[in-house]
Formats: sequence, C-alpha cells, structure tokens
Amino acid sequence: MTVNLNYLNQNKERFLNELIELLKIPSISADTAFTQDVLNCADAVAESLKNAKLDNVEICETKGYPIVYGEKIINPILPTILIYGHYDVQPPDPLELWESGPFEPVIKNTEIHPEGAIFARGSADDKGQAFMHIKAVESMIFTNTLPCNVKFLIEGEEEVGSSSLGDFLKENKEKFKNDIILISDTHLLSNEHPSLTVGLRGLSYVEVCVEGPNRDLHSGLYGGGVPNPINVLAEMIASLHDENGKITIKNFYDTVENLTDEERVEYAKLPFDVEDWKNSIGLKDIQGEKNYSTMERISTRPTLDVNGIWGGYEGEGAKTVIPSKAFAKISMRLVPNQNNEEITKLFTEHFESIAPKSVKVTVTTMHGGLPYVLPSSDKGYQAAKKAMEVTFGKEILPYRGGGSIPIVALFEQILGSKSVLMGFGLDTDAIHSPNEHYGLFNFYKGIETIPYFFKFYAENK
Amino acid sequence: MTVNLNYLNQNKERFLNELIELLKIPSISADTAFTQDVLNCADAVAESLKNAKLDNVEICETKGYPIVYGEKIINPILPTILIYGHYDVQPPDPLELWESGPFEPVIKNTEIHPEGAIFARGSADDKGQAFMHIKAVESMIFTNTLPCNVKFLIEGEEEVGSSSLGDFLKENKEKFKNDIILISDTHLLSNEHPSLTVGLRGLSYVEVCVEGPNRDLHSGLYGGGVPNPINVLAEMIASLHDENGKITIKNFYDTVENLTDEERVEYAKLPFDVEDWKNSIGLKDIQGEKNYSTMERISTRPTLDVNGIWGGYEGEGAKTVIPSKAFAKISMRLVPNQNNEEITKLFTEHFESIAPKSVKVTVTTMHGGLPYVLPSSDKGYQAAKKAMEVTFGKEILPYRGGGSIPIVALFEQILGSKSVLMGFGLDTDAIHSPNEHYGLFNFYKGIETIPYFFKFYAENK
Repeated sequence: MTVNLNYLNQNKERFLNELIELLKIPSISADTAFTQDVLNCADAVAESLKNAKLDNVEICETKGYPIVYGEKIINPILPTILIYGHYDVQPPDPLELWESGPFEPVIKNTEIHPEGAIFARGSADDKGQAFMHIKAVESMIFTNTLPCNVKFLIEGEEEVGSSSLGDFLKENKEKFKNDIILISDTHLLSNEHPSLTVGLRGLSYVEVCVEGPNRDLHSGLYGGGVPNPINVLAEMIASLHDENGKITIKNFYDTVENLTDEERVEYAKLPFDVEDWKNSIGLKDIQGEKNYSTMERISTRPTLDVNGIWGGYEGEGAKTVIPSKAFAKISMRLVPNQNNEEITKLFTEHFESIAPKSVKVTVTTMHGGLPYVLPSSDKGYQAAKKAMEVTFGKEILPYRGGGSIPIVALFEQILGSKSVLMGFGLDTDAIHSPNEHYGLFNFYKGIETIPYFFKFYAENK
Repeated sequence: MTVNLNYLNQNKERFLNELIELLKIPSISADTAFTQDVLNCADAVAESLKNAKLDNVEICETKGYPIVYGEKIINPILPTILIYGHYDVQPPDPLELWESGPFEPVIKNTEIHPEGAIFARGSADDKGQAFMHIKAVESMIFTNTLPCNVKFLIEGEEEVGSSSLGDFLKENKEKFKNDIILISDTHLLSNEHPSLTVGLRGLSYVEVCVEGPNRDLHSGLYGGGVPNPINVLAEMIASLHDENGKITIKNFYDTVENLTDEERVEYAKLPFDVEDWKNSIGLKDIQGEKNYSTMERISTRPTLDVNGIWGGYEGEGAKTVIPSKAFAKISMRLVPNQNNEEITKLFTEHFESIAPKSVKVTVTTMHGGLPYVLPSSDKGYQAAKKAMEVTFGKEILPYRGGGSIPIVALFEQILGSKSVLMGFGLDTDAIHSPNEHYGLFNFYKGIETIPYFFKFYAENK
C-alpha cells in the first residue's frame, strides 16, 4: 500500500478551517458552566468521523462526558490501530493574558513558527493533534489507501483525570480491542530534532500531616518545651534525601530499571543545552541526584518533591504561634519498574518510622499512576520511527518524558496493548497556559506522517 | 508607716462596682470602630485617678491613643514608684464563644475561683489589674499612709504594640522619672503558689524566602533537575538545630547568661508537673534541648521556632507543581544577655551562608525585643517578695516567664529603671481568649499587697 499525499495537499485549507470551527467550541470539562459546550463538541467530533466515512460512529455515554467512537474494519485478519485523543480542553484562565480570545482562533506567525500557528485553547492539547488523525484517516479512506483496521476513541474528560475511562474500557474491552494504540498528545524536542516519547514517569502523590500539641500555642509560653510541628516536618522532609540527592526511603530504588551504558550514551546525544534550559527558568544553578545529567534526572530518574507546604501563620506581620499541625503535599515521580502502590506503601512506612515520638503523623494517599516504557523492539515504536524519518527526513530521537500520562498505563492494564506516543507539538506551545497555539507545519506534518505509520505498522506486523 | 486595710474592707463593694463600670467600655485599640470608646475609657481612668485624690491628672496626647497620667509627690526626697498599666483591651472575637457579653461584666463562681470571678474582656488584662493600683493608692491617700511618691502611666495602645509610648517617654523623661516601676500585667503560678516574674525572654522575628526557578514549574517535566524551594527550605530549617536540640547558628549562645547551679536547684523546686502540663496540651511527648528541664526550656533557654510556613499548592487534591518560592516566619526567643539586633544579624548571616548556590535567599527582619531579668539583689524585687509573703502567708517563688513584654526593656532603656512584675492573674484567666475573667480573690489580694510593696520599698530604699 502506498501513501497518497494528493488528498492532503488538495484539502489543506478545508482541514484547517474545520479545525478552526472545532476550536471555537469552549469544551472546558472542569467547569460545569460549559457542560453543553462539551456535549456539543462531542457531537462535532462524531460528525467529523462520519464525514471521514468511518463506520459505527457513536457517542458513547459514560458516567461523565461521552466518549466518541468510530471504526473502519476493512478486514478482521488485518491489524487494528486504536487512535486515542481528547476533545475537552483546560480552562483558559487567566483570560487577561490572552492576546486574542481563547475560543476565537487566529493564525499568526511566530519566530518558531514562520509558517504560522493557530492560537486557541485546545489547538495543541489536544483538538489539533486529535484532528490530524481524523484527517489522515479520512485521506486514507478517500484515496483507498487504508492498509489496516482503525478505531477511534476520543474522550471528553482527559483534563479532569479521565475518571470515566477505566470503567468504560473494562465494560467494552471487545469493542476497543486493538494491536497498538496511537496517541498524539506529546511534543517533539523541536522541529529540527523530531523525537518520539518512549517512556513516562509514574506518580505517587501523598499528603502528610504532623501534629504536635492539640491546639495552637503561644511560642513565648511554650517555645522550647514542645515539638513544633513545622520544625519537625521540615526535619522529616529534609531527611528524605541524602547528601547525594538520593531518596532515603528504604527499598525505594529496588525495582528501578537503570539505563544501560549504551542507553546513557544515546541519551547524552539528545539535543539539550543545559545553559539554555537553566536560563529559560531563571535558575541560579541546577541541582539534582549526583552522577546523572540533567536530562537523565528529569526523565529517567525517580524524584521526591514537596508540591505544597503549610502550617501556622501566613499573614502580614508577625504572630508568635506554635501551630498544632503542619501539612505537606509530597509527590514522587517513578520510573520503570517501580509500582506506585508499592512506593506509596514504602513512603508511608518510612515516614511514620522517622517521626519523633512527640508527634502524630498521618499519611493520606492522594493519587498515583504507573510509569511506562515502550521498548525499541516494539513494532509500534519501529513503525512510528520509520514514518517520522520519512516525513521529517531526519533521525528520530527516542527520549523519555518526565511527566505522567495515566491513561497509557490504564490502556496497557485493561486492553493489554502498548501505546505509541507520536506527538507533534512543541514544548513552547503553551498548553495549559494563555496563548496556547499549534504550528501549521506541525499540524500538516502530523497528517502526512500518520499514513506512513499505518503503512509501516501493517507491513511489519 | 503602717498598712491600713480598713479602707479596703469598707469599700470592697464600691471598688468592684467601679471596676464593672470600667469594664463596660469596649476600649478595643485594634479596631478603629471603637476609637471613641477608647477615648472615653481614658477619660474614665483619669476620673478615677482624680477621685483617688491624685494631683496633676492629665490625658496626655500622643501620636496614637492618649496616656493617662497622675501623681502624688509627697516629698521630693522620698523615692518615687511609677505604676504602669493599660486601659485598652484585645478584640473579643470569636464572639460566639463567650458565655456572656464581653462588655457586660458578670460575676460567676468557678472551680478555681470559689469566691467568684468577674467575666469581661479586660478584666485580667489589664483593666482589673491596673485598677487594683488606683484603688490601693486611693486607700493609702485617704488613710494618710502613702509612704513615698507615686506616678501613674496608664496607656491605651498596649494591645497594638505600644507604638507611641517610646517617643512619648523620650520627650517626657523628667515627668516619668522614678526609682522603680511596678506593673501588674503577668500571672501567678497559682493562688496556692504565688510567684514573681523575674525574667522575660526577648524576641527576634524574621521572615525568610527561598526562590528557585523564576516561575512555578510542572514537577513531571522539571522534577529532579531543579532545586525545589520547599525541599531546600525544609533542609535549611532542619539544619538550624542539632541532634541535641541546640541551635546551630554560629555564636548564637555566646552571650547567654546560664543559670548558676544554685539557681537551677531553686528552679527545679518550682511547682510544675510535666505530666499535667503535657496532658493540658494533648502532647504525646515533650521535646527540647538536651540536659534541660521543661521548665528551664520554656523560660530560661533561647529557642528557634517556625511560626508559619507556606509554598506551592495548599488546596484540595493534588497539583504537581514545583513552586518558584517558599516562605517561613521564624522567631527566636532570647534570654539575658542576648541582644535581639545582634541575633537577627547572626541568623541572617548564617541562613544566607547555608543556602545552596542554586537558590536565592532573602531574610526580612520583622520585629524584636530585648530579654529582661530582675536580679534578686534589686530592692524592688525584695519589696515585692516581702509584700506578697505578708499577704499570701507563703514563700514567694521567683520564676522567669517565657514570653516577651517589650515595654519593660523600653523602660529600662529610656527611663533607666527596672520594672517589678507583680502580677496577680492566673494563666487560666483566658486573656486574649473568649470568657476572660479575673478572680475576686486576686483582685482584692492585689489591692491588699500593693501598700505593703510601697511600705517595704520606701523603708529599704
């Protein structure tokens, strides 16, 4: 099967105009004031699947917002690619920082995007990227070049934790059965250094409370004689790292699969300028686990960060209080093959064990997710790499992302299949921030690349 | 000169009724809605000084609320006692926790006060205690038993930091010249264990900020590679104490005047049940500087407590942020002869020196005060001890309070005289809290004791 790019070239303007219409819908899943807009957006996505001549297009009810489904089964013995995306978007706040309305898409040229970029909430995350797949599949169907079966799963709750997805998948395993899942919801290192995300970190997130006296005390009358929960919490937090930046929780690293020497050599070749990176966030100096590069630290190594801390008096001026309680939110990023439930358990045991007997400690599990890795032996990985090499004409760099995409672990757990993270965004796209945008180069490059993925995956499977 | 108690015994009811009228005035200095009430209260105090036949009674204007003055100079060659008190009160919030109106005084019996206590805001702090002095001096004047000169200084800004007092004293040094200052604004260990406060701790209060990246970061994308300001702040705070609970700031203890072995033996005899104390604040276990008793730790030893900490996400649920900044309010209680300005300087230098080079640290001085001690050789101390021994018929226990009363250091600095802290309250009086009250036993015992103080001080001077 060959890839036919004529259809794309003839319909470029229409594809973009259709995306603009989709971006006008404020499908903000986090805000109930926009419920009808989210539902309208599901309708619009379903409509575009129908226009692409997909079969059995359906707006599937869930406990939350619906999941839009569509399929084209050309031959049951051929492999099936499941495309995942989401049609909901982040709230646009703070509105005053947008240069144009978040739901009034405009095209502007930028330094990074001399061919233009479309500015709107959801342009990169994820309507623009999900829409590439619809248009790529439409192209293949209309040019009779679809080489295998395809299914679409476009959800409306990704920005609020995909809370209905797990149950829905469990109840509909057969419907979503597939050989590989293809997702465009990540970014390239840059347009000059196209890349594939082959790993994600997992997460264990807890809240801790240290309680000393049963009420707030006057620091003059009691200071020196009682455990101050803030001081105690600070000491406990400080003890969670050693002088080399290693986490001190017992057995924390037991299941960590370290990069091989060869992998580290490859990793060191990734285009990453630590000075640029440092300056982009105004850092006086980098800091982290000894004997690892910054790039390794932020993607291949587990971490422990305090995400929030509070206790006592936070107002103006001075109040001489010893508070009864102090709190912190602590999260650990995990790497293969750490299990978030096991790590949460290790943390809890350790944290309780290091508490002085003068205080009461509570650890509450907040949430978590498994780390993910796509091995280079995976046929999906190989197809994606080859496809991008054709369309970018460059070497494709595999790298691990430091963040977590919980649905990827969920898919593997429930559907038993790996996900290929072939994202076309850039980290400068300002997703979740004001003035989100998506480069037209990236939009069209995605539509061009996806058929090659289908071709190579179908050929090699 | 003998002490005549007939006048007190004949006027007990009137004294109490006059105090009740004074307590009805809501002289809340912190709330401008009560400005006129504060001024009315100054008038009422002046009126009661006039009724006591004091001379040159004056409502002295200051930059803030007025200071009420009155004097009786019977002979310039005799010693002069300056009585300090304050007529302003704390705000009564939370109002819903009061069993009767804060400015509707009622007399009720309690377990600790079987003879009755007067419930009202200001009853113990400090209207009730200041009023004892007016009535004691009235008694001495009306019975011709005043043995020396007396001056009154009753201010209206104690609960808001006595901000006008320093300048006013500097401009009126001659007017307030005295040999000893007598203050009743502290409490007894208990009615069974009457005591004198012979020391107070000083204070150095700072706010610190640790800044890492110049904006909040996603902990997935950056975690492991950047200094997390909360983790760094926790480590810096933890390092401020060693494993023995000693403060690690360089030269911090250099000027501390340790208790002598004899003083420690006396201190150990103070009625203090560590189990009762622990239980009264629901503590699992005590904690503090090694080799010191709890009583020593909370009054004779310097401390370092975090009074507030904040940074990152404090809301519901989980947010994976690495904040740009983390903050803490840190205060140190100081003991003789530590100087708060010197200690603030030592803290700042130390805190900046321990910061890793990846972060920026700022230390802001909030406020401070000198520690205070009244030596047992002081004639004022000896007169107070003797006076209380007569009226209580018990040994009077000297002890140091852990808190700070900044005006005491101010008096010594500007007027060059020591203050005797002969308070008659109890620590159960709920000052600054709902249902503040003052025992009638204590009120009358004060009026009875003050003339003995005058007598012994005049005789021994």
